[in-house]
Amino acid sequence: METLFLWRFIMIVILKKNHSEEDLDHIIEITKEMGFQSHVSRGTEKTIIGVIGDDSYVSVDRFENLQFVDKVVKVLKPYKLVSKEFHPEMTVIVVGQEHQIGSGFSIMAGPCAVESESLLDEVGAFLSEQSVPFLRGGAFKPRTSPYSFQGLGLEGLKILKKTAEKYNLKVVTELMSESESDVLNEYADIIQIGSRNAQNFRLLEKCGHFDKPILLKRGYMNRTEEFLQSAEYIMANGNPNVILCERGIRTFETITRNTLDLSVVPYVKEESHLPIIVDPSHATGKRELVPAMVYASWAAGADGIMVEIHPNPERALSDGRQSLDFKQFESMKNRLNLLMNHNT
Amino acid sequence: METLFLWRFIMIVILKKNHSEEDLDHIIEITKEMGFQSHVSRGTEKTIIGVIGDDSYVSVDRFENLQFVDKVVKVLKPYKLVSKEFHPEMTVIVVGQEHQIGSGFSIMAGPCAVESESLLDEVGAFLSEQSVPFLRGGAFKPRTSPYSFQGLGLEGLKILKKTAEKYNLKVVTELMSESESDVLNEYADIIQIGSRNAQNFRLLEKCGHFDKPILLKRGYMNRTEEFLQSAEYIMANGNPNVILCERGIRTFETITRNTLDLSVVPYVKEESHLPIIVDPSHATGKRELVPAMVYASWAAGADGIMVEIHPNPERALSDGRQSLDFKQFESMKNRLNLLMNHNT
Amino acid sequence: METLFLWRFIMIVILKKNHSEEDLDHIIEITKEMGFQSHVSRGTEKTIIGVIGDDSYVSVDRFENLQFVDKVVKVLKPYKLVSKEFHPEMTVIVVGQEHQIGSGFSIMAGPCAVESESLLDEVGAFLSEQSVPFLRGGAFKPRTSPYSFQGLGLEGLKILKKTAEKYNLKVVTELMSESESDVLNEYADIIQIGSRNAQNFRLLEKCGHFDKPILLKRGYMNRTEEFLQSAEYIMANGNPNVILCERGIRTFETITRNTLDLSVVPYVKEESHLPIIVDPSHATGKRELVPAMVYASWAAGADGIMVEIHPNPERALSDGRQSLDFKQFESMKNRLNLLMNHNT
Amino acid sequence: METLFLWRFIMIVILKKNHSEEDLDHIIEITKEMGFQSHVSRGTEKTIIGVIGDDSYVSVDRFENLQFVDKVVKVLKPYKLVSKEFHPEMTVIVVGQEHQIGSGFSIMAGPCAVESESLLDEVGAFLSEQSVPFLRGGAFKPRTSPYSFQGLGLEGLKILKKTAEKYNLKVVTELMSESESDVLNEYADIIQIGSRNAQNFRLLEKCGHFDKPILLKRGYMNRTEEFLQSAEYIMANGNPNVILCERGIRTFETITRNTLDLSVVPYVKEESHLPIIVDPSHATGKRELVPAMVYASWAAGADGIMVEIHPNPERALSDGRQSLDFKQFESMKNRLNLLMNHNT
Repeated sequence: METLFLWRFIMIVILKKNHSEEDLDHIIEITKEMGFQSHVSRGTEKTIIGVIGDDSYVSVDRFENLQFVDKVVKVLKPYKLVSKEFHPEMTVIVVGQEHQIGSGFSIMAGPCAVESESLLDEVGAFLSEQSVPFLRGGAFKPRTSPYSFQGLGLEGLKILKKTAEKYNLKVVTELMSESESDVLNEYADIIQIGSRNAQNFRLLEKCGHFDKPILLKRGYMNRTEEFLQSAEYIMANGNPNVILCERGIRTFETITRNTLDLSVVPYVKEESHLPIIVDPSHATGKRELVPAMVYASWAAGADGIMVEIHPNPERALSDGRQSLDFKQFESMKNRLNLLMNHNT
Repeated sequence: METLFLWRFIMIVILKKNHSEEDLDHIIEITKEMGFQSHVSRGTEKTIIGVIGDDSYVSVDRFENLQFVDKVVKVLKPYKLVSKEFHPEMTVIVVGQEHQIGSGFSIMAGPCAVESESLLDEVGAFLSEQSVPFLRGGAFKPRTSPYSFQGLGLEGLKILKKTAEKYNLKVVTELMSESESDVLNEYADIIQIGSRNAQNFRLLEKCGHFDKPILLKRGYMNRTEEFLQSAEYIMANGNPNVILCERGIRTFETITRNTLDLSVVPYVKEESHLPIIVDPSHATGKRELVPAMVYASWAAGADGIMVEIHPNPERALSDGRQSLDFKQFESMKNRLNLLMNHNT
Repeated sequence: METLFLWRFIMIVILKKNHSEEDLDHIIEITKEMGFQSHVSRGTEKTIIGVIGDDSYVSVDRFENLQFVDKVVKVLKPYKLVSKEFHPEMTVIVVGQEHQIGSGFSIMAGPCAVESESLLDEVGAFLSEQSVPFLRGGAFKPRTSPYSFQGLGLEGLKILKKTAEKYNLKVVTELMSESESDVLNEYADIIQIGSRNAQNFRLLEKCGHFDKPILLKRGYMNRTEEFLQSAEYIMANGNPNVILCERGIRTFETITRNTLDLSVVPYVKEESHLPIIVDPSHATGKRELVPAMVYASWAAGADGIMVEIHPNPERALSDGRQSLDFKQFESMKNRLNLLMNHNT
Repeated sequence: METLFLWRFIMIVILKKNHSEEDLDHIIEITKEMGFQSHVSRGTEKTIIGVIGDDSYVSVDRFENLQFVDKVVKVLKPYKLVSKEFHPEMTVIVVGQEHQIGSGFSIMAGPCAVESESLLDEVGAFLSEQSVPFLRGGAFKPRTSPYSFQGLGLEGLKILKKTAEKYNLKVVTELMSESESDVLNEYADIIQIGSRNAQNFRLLEKCGHFDKPILLKRGYMNRTEEFLQSAEYIMANGNPNVILCERGIRTFETITRNTLDLSVVPYVKEESHLPIIVDPSHATGKRELVPAMVYASWAAGADGIMVEIHPNPERALSDGRQSLDFKQFESMKNRLNLLMNHNT
C-alpha cells in the first residue's frame, strides 16, 4: 500500500479512540483553514491524520487544543536558518578580520567581572603573552541577589576596550538589557547573551540587528531544541553570526554548579552549521574540574572554550571559586597544545 | 484521501530525508518479519510508514536502530492491564474483608521505622483511638549509607503484627529483597515496594505471585509511564491488587526533599483503574508542609494518604524531621474531616 | 563550653583538612577586610570559622574562592524584604480600591493571548457573569519559536482595557521588555512578569519603579530561594506590591508540560508575607488536569489561581490545549465554591 | 578568639531564631546521649552548636528532627572506605592476572543483550582481532516493560563463557537479582550492577561477599555522593574491588537518552581511589554521538569505556540505536589510539 504526495508532511495527528465522525470532519476543516491538505488513515483502534503543506513553520497548537486528539507529532524541526539541512556548509565567523571562530580551536579567557583597570591590565598582558586573542569580562553582571556586586557598567566597558587596544585583543562581554545595547555594541567585539537571558526574546531580536557576532549561551534550563530556536530568533532578525556556547544545565546533581552537557557538541555538529564553544567554568563551578573539561571539550569536537581566569582568584569579587589562576591556566594550555599538535 | 485498515496501528516510523529506496524496502521487510503490515506515505521531504498489526506490545527498538529512521512514534500505550481502556471499572482493593482502598479516603500512618515494641504500642493505641485502620512501619529500611540504622528486621515484623492484632489494625510494611519476601508475606497485610526498588524488576515479578495487595511507590526518578509499567509488571505476573503511591520526584528544588507531583493523581484517574494514594511525608521531608499537602491530595482526588507519625519525632531514629507528632496528626485529621464531611 | 557574641552570625567557613597556619591567617585577614569578626574553632580534623557582623547581605564568594576552604554555609537567608522575619504581618494587595489579593481566594481568568476584540468581549461578559474580577490576557507573547504567533501588541492592550472598562474588570497582562514598560503600565492593572523573564534582572528593577502590583511568575528553572530573591529585586527597587505565582517547574516528567510544585505554597506562607497564587494551566498543560489542581491549590492554602479559559479552545491561537471552555470553568468554579463555603 | 578541641567536628547545628533555653538544653542532652560533645556559639540572631566526637558516621536525623533547628551541616563526608583521604593510593583492579583496570585505558565492548551463540561468536572474534580484552553482554536484562525481551538467562551466561574462553576474553555481565547471584558469579569475570539497581542495597551487600570485581553503574537518578555511598556498601561488606561507571543521569534534555555527566570523572579522581570508566552508549542513546563522547571520556581522565557494539545494529533485539557496528567501532578505536599514543 502506498500513497504519493507532492507536498511535504508537516505533522501527524493521532486521534483518541472513540472519536466521532464529526470530530474527524472538524479536524479536516481546520486543516483546510490553515491552508494544508490532510490524509486520513483509519485503523480499528486509532485514526491518524497526516497534515501536508508547503510551509514548515506551523504551530501544533490548533491540533493539540482538540479534546479528541491524542497526540501531535511534528515531522519537521522547529528551526530552519540554524539547520545544516538549510545551510550545509559550516559557518566560520570572522572577528576583526584576523580571528576566526569555527575553524581551529578558539580560546576566550578573562575574569568573571571587570573589577578594576589594574586587574584588566594584568589579565591583558597575560593573555597577550599566552597568544589568547579573546578577552572576556563582565561589565554588567546578572546576579541572583540584588545585593551582590552588579559590575562597573560603562566604566567597565571602557576598561575592557582600553585593555583590548593595548594588548591587541578582542572583547567578549555580556549584554543584559535592551537599553544598554547601543553602548555595549560600541565597546564589544563579540556580544554575549547570558544563560538567564537565553529566552529573553526581545533581547534576542535586538541581537538580530547588530553587525557584531553574538555569543549565545545556552539557557541552563533549555533543551537543545530551544537553544537552537533562540539562535533562530537572532538569525531570523538578520544576524547570521551566532556562536553557540554550552555552559551546563541545571540538574539534581549538587557537586557541580551545573551539569556540563558535552553530548550537545557532536549533536549540534550534526544538526547545525553554527560553531559551538564550551564554558567549563560556569558548568562545573570548581576550578579543579576545569582543565579536564577543557580537554574533554576539545576531544568532543568543540570549536573553542571560554574560561574564567584571575591573577588572584581568592580576591575575585565574583565566581573566584571557578577561576583558574595564571599558572593553572598556563599549565592547562600547555597540555591542550600537546593534545592539539599531535592530533590535527 | 482516506485509507481504511482492518487492523490497528502500532506505531509510525518517520524516515530521514534522502533515504534510499533500499532503505524503504529494508524497513518493509523488517515489518513483515515482525508479523506486521505497513502503509507507506511519501511526501516530497519525508516518508512515513504506518505499522499495523494486532498486537499492542512491540518493541520500537528494531526501527529506532535504523540509521535512516528519524523518529518512531508509538501510537499505543506501553501498558495494558493497568489501563482503564482495558479495565474500565475502577478497582477497589479489599484488605482483610473490612477495609477498602479505592473507595473513600484511606489513611495509613505510623513511624518511619519500627524502633521498639513500646513505640509501636503507643502508636497503635493512638491510631485505634483516631480510627485509622492502617499501621505503617519499616522493619527492613533501605538507607543510602551502609552505616545508617537498617531497621530491626524480623523482630520488627513481629512487633508490627503484635501491635496490629492488639489494636485491630492492618500492617503496611516494605519489602526490600526477594530473599525476605516469604517472611514479609507472613507478617504484612499490604506489601510496600519502596521508591528505590520501583524498577527492581525481579522484586516486582515476585510481588506478582503474592496474594496480598502491593503498595507500589513511584520511583523518585520515574516518569508516570514508567510508574504504570512497574505496576504492569506486578499485574502481568498475576497480582491484580496494586495500590499506586505518589511520593515525590527528584528535581533541582532543594527546600523540599522531593517535589510532590500531585498532577499525577488526576492523570492516573483518567488513565488507569488502580487506586492512587499520596505520601506527603517523604515528598516534602518537612513536617510543617505535610498537613497542607494532605488537604491538597484529598482535593486533587487521591484515594488516601500515608503519613509518618511519631510520639516524639525529635527522638526518631530516622526521618523524624518529616514526622507529625500525635497532636499535629490529630489537628490535621480534624481539618481533613471537616473538608470531607462537607464535600462528599 | 560556650562563647557569647554581641553580633550575629553571617556564615560559617569550614576549612579543608591539612590547611596551613598561613591559610588560617589569610582568611582571618579577609574577614577583617570585609568588616567582620571571626571566631575560630579547631578540631583535630577540621577547622571551622564563624563569621560575625551586623550585615546580613554579604557574598560568600570571597570565601568559596579559597582553595583551602571546604564549604561555606550561609546562616542568614539571602533575602530580607520578602521575609516574614523582617515583615511579620501578611501583605494584602489592593487593586483598584475594591479588590484584594492576599485576603480570600482570588480568581484571574482569560485567554492565553488577546486574539481579537470579539473574543475578549465574549470572555469579559462571561467573567462578569461569573463574578470573576481579574481578566488575564497576553498582548505581548514570549514564544520559543520566532515563527509562532507573537501577540497583537499595543492593539491587544487597547482591547484589554476596553473590555475591562466595559465589564468592570481589572487587567493582568505580561511585560516582556523594558522598552514596552511605559505603555504596558498605562494599560495594565497588574503587571505580570513571565517565567522566562524571572531572572531578567533589569526588567525586575524596572518593576520596582512602577506603582502597580507585580505578578511575578516563578522561573520554571528557579529554586524557591531564587524565586524569592527575584521578588526581593522588585521590592529593593521600591515596589512592595508583589504577588508570587507558582506555575510549575521543569523536570524529567513528560505527561505534564511542567511539574506543579504545590509544596511551595505552604513553604512561602511560612517564610514570606507576600501573597502567592497558582497557575495550573501552564503547570499541567492539559485542561483535564486543571480543575483538580485548582482544588488542590485552594486546599494547600494559596491566595488564588490564574487559569486560562477560551470560549472555543480548539480555535485558540496558543495554549488551547490547556484552556478550559466556559462550561468547564463554570463547573470548576461551582465545585470550588462548594469547597470554600463550607470551609472558611 | 579561638577554641581548641581534641576531637574532630562531626556536624554543625544551627538553631532557629527565638529558640528557648530549654531547646538548647535539650539539644545538648541529645548530643551527650549520642556520645558526643557540643560547643555552643551564641550570636544575637543565631545559636550554633558544633558537635564533636570520634566517629565520622552519624545520622543527622536526630538533629534535623527538632523543630527549633534551622539547619544541620555535615562536616565529614558520608563515606570512608571509598575516599582518598582514607586510602591515598589509587586502586588498580586486576582481572584474571593479566588485565588491569585503573592503569591505562580499558575498553569493554559487546552487544546489549546476548541474543544467540552465533552473534557472540562474531563479536568475540572481532574483539580478539581488535585486542579488546573485555566482552560485555547481558544475559539477564532489566526492561521497563514486562513485555520486552528479557534476555536468555542461564543460556546467555553459557554462551558468554564459551565465547570468552574461545577468544581469551573476560566476561562483564549484569546481576539483577540476589537469587541469580551464585550462578552469575560462576560465569562472570566482572559483575555489573545496573543503573536501576544502584540503590538496591541488598544486592550491593551481596556484592560485598563476592571475590569478583564489581562494575557499579551510577544510578541515573543518583548524586555523586550517593553513587559513592553505593560503592561504600560493597566495600563495607568486604569487597574492595569496585569499578565505578558513569552512564548518564536523567535530566530534562530529550535529544539524548540521558545526560552524560563527565565532570564526575575528575571529581571522583580527586575524591576517591577507585577507578572510573564511562558508558557513552547508554548515556547518549545515539550511536552517532558515541565516538565523540569516547574521546572526551579519555581526555577527561577516565580509566576506560564500555561501549555497545553489534555486527548488525539494525537487527539488535534491544538498544541497537546506540550500538556501533564493527566498522564504526574500528574507526573510533583508531582515532582513540592516535590520541593516546601521542599523549601518554
